[in-house]
Amino acid sequence: FLLDTGVSLSLCASRCQKFLISRVGEDWIFLILLGLLMALVSWVMDYAIAFCQEAQKWMYGGLDSNLLLQYIAWISYPVVLITFSAGFTQILAPQAVGSGIPEMKTILRGVVLKEYLTFKTFVAKVIGLTCALGSGMPLGKEGPFVHVASLCAALLSKFMAAVFGGIYKNELRNTEMLSAACAVGVGCCFAAPIGGVLFSIEVTSTFFAVRNYWRGFFAATFSAFIFRVLAVWNQEEETITALFKTRFRLDFPFDLQELPAFAILGIACGFGGALFVYLNRLIVECMRKQKTINKFLLRKRLVYPALVTLLISTLTFPPGFGQFMAGQLTQHESLVALFDNRTWCRQGVAEEFDYISHHHAWKHPQVNVFITLILFTVMKFWMSAVATTMPVPCGAFMPVFLIGAAFGRLVGEIMATMFPDGIHAAGSVYPIVPGGYAVVGAAALSGAVTHTVSTAVIVFELTGQISHILPVMIAVILANAVAQALQPSLYDSIIRIKKLPYLPELGMGHHEKYNIRVEDIMVRDVRYITLNSSYRDLQEMLMTGQLKTLALVESRDSMILLGSIERLQLQSLLSLQLSRQRRLEYLRQLAQDNGTHDHLPSLTSDSTPSSPCTHTHLNSSTNSSAHLTYEMSFLWIQSLEVPVSSLMQITEWEEQQLDEPVDFKNCKIDPAPFQLVEQTSLHKTHTIFSLLGLDHAYVTSMGRLVGVVSLKELRKAIEGSVTVTGVKVRPPLASFRDSGNTTNVSEVTELHKLCIRHRGLSLPREPNPPNSPPAGLHKECQV
Amino acid sequence: FLLDTGVSLSLCASRCQKFLISRVGEDWIFLILLGLLMALVSWVMDYAIAFCQEAQKWMYGGLDSNLLLQYIAWISYPVVLITFSAGFTQILAPQAVGSGIPEMKTILRGVVLKEYLTFKTFVAKVIGLTCALGSGMPLGKEGPFVHVASLCAALLSKFMAAVFGGIYKNELRNTEMLSAACAVGVGCCFAAPIGGVLFSIEVTSTFFAVRNYWRGFFAATFSAFIFRVLAVWNQEEETITALFKTRFRLDFPFDLQELPAFAILGIACGFGGALFVYLNRLIVECMRKQKTINKFLLRKRLVYPALVTLLISTLTFPPGFGQFMAGQLTQHESLVALFDNRTWCRQGVAEEFDYISHHHAWKHPQVNVFITLILFTVMKFWMSAVATTMPVPCGAFMPVFLIGAAFGRLVGEIMATMFPDGIHAAGSVYPIVPGGYAVVGAAALSGAVTHTVSTAVIVFELTGQISHILPVMIAVILANAVAQALQPSLYDSIIRIKKLPYLPELGMGHHEKYNIRVEDIMVRDVRYITLNSSYRDLQEMLMTGQLKTLALVESRDSMILLGSIERLQLQSLLSLQLSRQRRLEYLRQLAQDNGTHDHLPSLTSDSTPSSPCTHTHLNSSTNSSAHLTYEMSFLWIQSLEVPVSSLMQITEWEEQQLDEPVDFKNCKIDPAPFQLVEQTSLHKTHTIFSLLGLDHAYVTSMGRLVGVVSLKELRKAIEGSVTVTGVKVRPPLASFRDSGNTTNVSEVTELHKLCIRHRGLSLPREPNPPNSPPAGLHKECQV
Repeated sequence: FLLDTGVSLSLCASRCQKFLISRVGEDWIFLILLGLLMALVSWVMDYAIAFCQEAQKWMYGGLDSNLLLQYIAWISYPVVLITFSAGFTQILAPQAVGSGIPEMKTILRGVVLKEYLTFKTFVAKVIGLTCALGSGMPLGKEGPFVHVASLCAALLSKFMAAVFGGIYKNELRNTEMLSAACAVGVGCCFAAPIGGVLFSIEVTSTFFAVRNYWRGFFAATFSAFIFRVLAVWNQEEETITALFKTRFRLDFPFDLQELPAFAILGIACGFGGALFVYLNRLIVECMRKQKTINKFLLRKRLVYPALVTLLISTLTFPPGFGQFMAGQLTQHESLVALFDNRTWCRQGVAEEFDYISHHHAWKHPQVNVFITLILFTVMKFWMSAVATTMPVPCGAFMPVFLIGAAFGRLVGEIMATMFPDGIHAAGSVYPIVPGGYAVVGAAALSGAVTHTVSTAVIVFELTGQISHILPVMIAVILANAVAQALQPSLYDSIIRIKKLPYLPELGMGHHEKYNIRVEDIMVRDVRYITLNSSYRDLQEMLMTGQLKTLALVESRDSMILLGSIERLQLQSLLSLQLSRQRRLEYLRQLAQDNGTHDHLPSLTSDSTPSSPCTHTHLNSSTNSSAHLTYEMSFLWIQSLEVPVSSLMQITEWEEQQLDEPVDFKNCKIDPAPFQLVEQTSLHKTHTIFSLLGLDHAYVTSMGRLVGVVSLKELRKAIEGSVTVTGVKVRPPLASFRDSGNTTNVSEVTELHKLCIRHRGLSLPREPNPPNSPPAGLHKECQV
Repeated sequence: FLLDTGVSLSLCASRCQKFLISRVGEDWIFLILLGLLMALVSWVMDYAIAFCQEAQKWMYGGLDSNLLLQYIAWISYPVVLITFSAGFTQILAPQAVGSGIPEMKTILRGVVLKEYLTFKTFVAKVIGLTCALGSGMPLGKEGPFVHVASLCAALLSKFMAAVFGGIYKNELRNTEMLSAACAVGVGCCFAAPIGGVLFSIEVTSTFFAVRNYWRGFFAATFSAFIFRVLAVWNQEEETITALFKTRFRLDFPFDLQELPAFAILGIACGFGGALFVYLNRLIVECMRKQKTINKFLLRKRLVYPALVTLLISTLTFPPGFGQFMAGQLTQHESLVALFDNRTWCRQGVAEEFDYISHHHAWKHPQVNVFITLILFTVMKFWMSAVATTMPVPCGAFMPVFLIGAAFGRLVGEIMATMFPDGIHAAGSVYPIVPGGYAVVGAAALSGAVTHTVSTAVIVFELTGQISHILPVMIAVILANAVAQALQPSLYDSIIRIKKLPYLPELGMGHHEKYNIRVEDIMVRDVRYITLNSSYRDLQEMLMTGQLKTLALVESRDSMILLGSIERLQLQSLLSLQLSRQRRLEYLRQLAQDNGTHDHLPSLTSDSTPSSPCTHTHLNSSTNSSAHLTYEMSFLWIQSLEVPVSSLMQITEWEEQQLDEPVDFKNCKIDPAPFQLVEQTSLHKTHTIFSLLGLDHAYVTSMGRLVGVVSLKELRKAIEGSVTVTGVKVRPPLASFRDSGNTTNVSEVTELHKLCIRHRGLSLPREPNPPNSPPAGLHKECQV
């Protein structure tokens, strides 16, 4: 009986375990874990940053007897922290430098950047970021946090795969999880789940699967919840509310007649955003071009961040220039002050605020509040642009957000001075709320820099008020329109600087792009191998070209596309053909034929681990590895002191081997590479490339391979080196395209040829222009 | 000199005109026009609806001396309006019935439903909807408004194309505009631009192009702005604020310990939402199955809506049962009352509200407020489910939102009774706000019914407060999780009821779906034509099959896929081969050969417009049109009284003609139909189908056609008639798939065959199981 119970118990246990494992495979458990982890990381990091900043203040405050000592305390602290951050990141994982959003965008496009998702990078990013932010420089947390969350997801995924196996090994699923992780990153950084999801979608995706929507929402909400609950448990807050809570009046948030001012603010922010991106790129490019600076900086990598930090912290030194630009406040304190309900220029409205102590930082006895705001905006603008080029983990969102808020506050204060009793004509007096302008400015400038609309949502979630929705939306949209017309987004700009593979967006209203077709941009000289190719052809192909995949066609005449083969596969095919095994076999056979058995045992018993075959696989990333193998095996045989005659025989044997037709039996072939037609429009090609994350696509006509389009050609076409009116890349026939029939002619002629070939007819009829209407768009939709 | 000026002036004018036309082609002008139009339509409609409801109240109020007269006035008004709405829609455009979101989802998937986007439908929808909503039935405005906005966009697009031409004719662009229009529809209906964009994305798309994001935001913001500005200009409001403004306290919106209650509310709403969808479908299916009812209803189409309206308005009659369920209030009034700041069960907090007059509708002298709320919730629940099945233009969002709000208020009142002084332990007393529960309930229930998360955003924009963000998000996500596990969304349910083409979503956590592959679900018996096919083959193919497109392969042996041809093209090919022209030519030649010239002139001069050729094109939609043509031309020749011998000859000629190989010269061929591989996973296939809006895809193996997958097979596979463990549709090899090598074997074998065929080798070597690792997922990514 006991045994029976034991058996049933163990059965039950095993079933439970199975159930558990299958449940653990569920997405939501993964997402909860991810959210929890990220919330903890975010909270601990915030705590550490606050501690750092408190420490600096304490040091600075304790030394108020001696100005020089105070100055040294004020500057040494950030310089040490930033230098440490730069050095630490440099040593542990240089991939952790910068925002991380550009890299995530590239990874989510399907490009493998493996070193960006390792544990080392995670550690470097978290510690480097904490130090960088703790220094009080104008740097942001949100960009790196997207990267940290993705790192977290990737590591968690790897861990789960190792423990539970199964579903965690699915690559598709990992991509889905990565895009959810990006949402978590923004969400738990700002406690803004909705804005986080939308921001991460806008910033990282070109096409978004609505299927994955709930994942982002779920994880970001959970994460934001935990992040804020930690603050409540730590008795910092009474309950869960917004990070930068505002108290604007609800009944009459703004007047209709204030809308033009909001619109102008939005447009100005658009120009400002474009300028910021331009400035940022200019600094990076300047540093690269100036060879002497560049060399010096490369040798001493830590000098640049130290110098920049020194400059910025000197300028913000509170008893010095800092007194005119509220230099003593941290980003958080400045933002709270800027979203203040009061009108600073008048101080008429008396409300109770607990952060009044920070308030006098903005009110200099000799200097007007307007001057302070203008100085703050201008100085922070270039400081942020410079600071974000430092080689430490840092983002630009928060600094830009702060500058926008200051600029908005400036406009608001000006409005409040111009209309002291508000604009509203009838009845009650509603004075203008400059804090509202600050909110609008913050959303508009950050929207302009990042080219996103969802900063509007982030601002609502950050302030906890949605009453200014209309001004915010109008300003953000206008700012986006202006900024997108002038400059790429900050993240796209970094992608270009870093030379990551990317696909530019089709801009607004570039309608001439609708007329470019694949045939205008494709490369007609495609490298291919046929079913009849010999190994020699293969070798030549591998030694001359640099493409990662090669097309496989039926024969040189038919050119019917059968599939594509990766370069690596071909290399291993070639090295297999000339492999040690086969060489040995041949030698043995040769020996048998000649009756010279003397040195063969040494060959067969030779089991050195560094056989040429292994070498091939190690070196397979280099282009000429096949050639290398060939040379090496040659040398290897030479080193065995084989008689010259047999060496000659081996060379002969190799030549003979190379002339054999390729045996594709053991080769992995991609049997259905993506195909386009010559008539596919650029617009559609762009859509397909970004939808499916393609790297290249073959252009076929009735199954025949006629060209290839890769990301490079597409990029060129979109960025304008190919125009419809230009003749640079266009084939002669393309200019007739508007008549509609010509494209069909070539198609028909080709079909005709095929027919003739198949039926064995020898007389080629004249290809008459057909009467059928030109192939419409609905045809192309089937691409 | 004058002439010179004239020339330069005319040049300038033409340049201006050109500039204007090119600018008009810009998206943003189109979007502004669309937003403006929709805001006007929405505002005028709201005005008309309010007028209708006022009229009913006035009639009802004026007759308070006689209960019977009052009753007749109360019921006759809605019955007349609903019957008129149903009749009007039925006569003008039956497509205007219902919500329109399911149809828009189908259209945006790429299916052409042309009659849904006509001017007639627009008129029917707008007028029908106004009447339906004016009747005061529990119907919504938001679903139909999505349809109206899309109609508006389609008509505007057509108008612009007629006037300005060019870019407006681009079909891709029209799709982009349609998806922006959906956002406008929701946006200007609720004055919720952000929520509108997100809701429309969630409801209509499976994959969303972030590129199109700004369009939706721009148009929806503009539209919402105009919609609210109209209210200000009409002196209804002082400034632009939310539609259902709430005044919850900002400093302590809710206690952390209330979160479990919010979570339970969310879960309950999830079950409620699933029940609503089930009930709605049940009613429709019941009516269909009951043949006697069905017949009766079909004959008298207006009886059903009239009966339903009679029932509902009788139950809400205020002096009758309506007094227990706030029957006299309109949807808008009820919602305002439910979002009230006060705690109804205690009335402790005294704040001033201007809608107190409506308030007593909820306070019956004999009945508890709990009973009123319960009755309201339950009665409105089934009433809404029934009302939305009426054949009038109507949506279900607003009624569901209202029910959710009532249920939330109920939970909130219960909580307020249980914790009269709030839950918060330390220090100050924060009483519970039942209005917050109403907001959470509304978002959760509407989210559950529509399977969307963005109802959370809509609720923030509707109430103008975001302070309850966390409870709302938690409840909405939980409600979604429950509802999605139990039922499809309301819109998907309607799509299934209406039998529109659709692709079901891959549910959460259906991980077994990752293991099904295309080879498990594809149809292996593909209909194809070869380059060698004769017209007879074509005829047979057309007469037996029903597919819209046919595959074109090189030959029966090679089976290499060259492209696909539409059925219509083949039909015209066949009819061209047996055309009147060619027949005449043959007859003339025959006559020349025989020397019988007597009846030929009559034939050549015969120019009857109803030639068989024309007939073919008219009848080309029927399946056997080719056969028909053949018969008809036969008859036609008979009617000309051709001698029997020549008739025989013609028959012979036709037989001979049919035996000729098909000449594909004049035929439009889709040269690159979409191809999948046998190993493509179901998950990936689903992604590709929904990404590219495919209807079918060919399955190829090394260029050879091996099968076809259409939406039907995919649907079956996802909905579970194919399981991995089932053997129903699986090919024998599929069960070996886990060993990883077997799939490669077949591939390699086929390749081998090809090689042999090409090299002319005759000895088939044994196909050894290869040593290469199984094709990984990253290979398939290239599909």
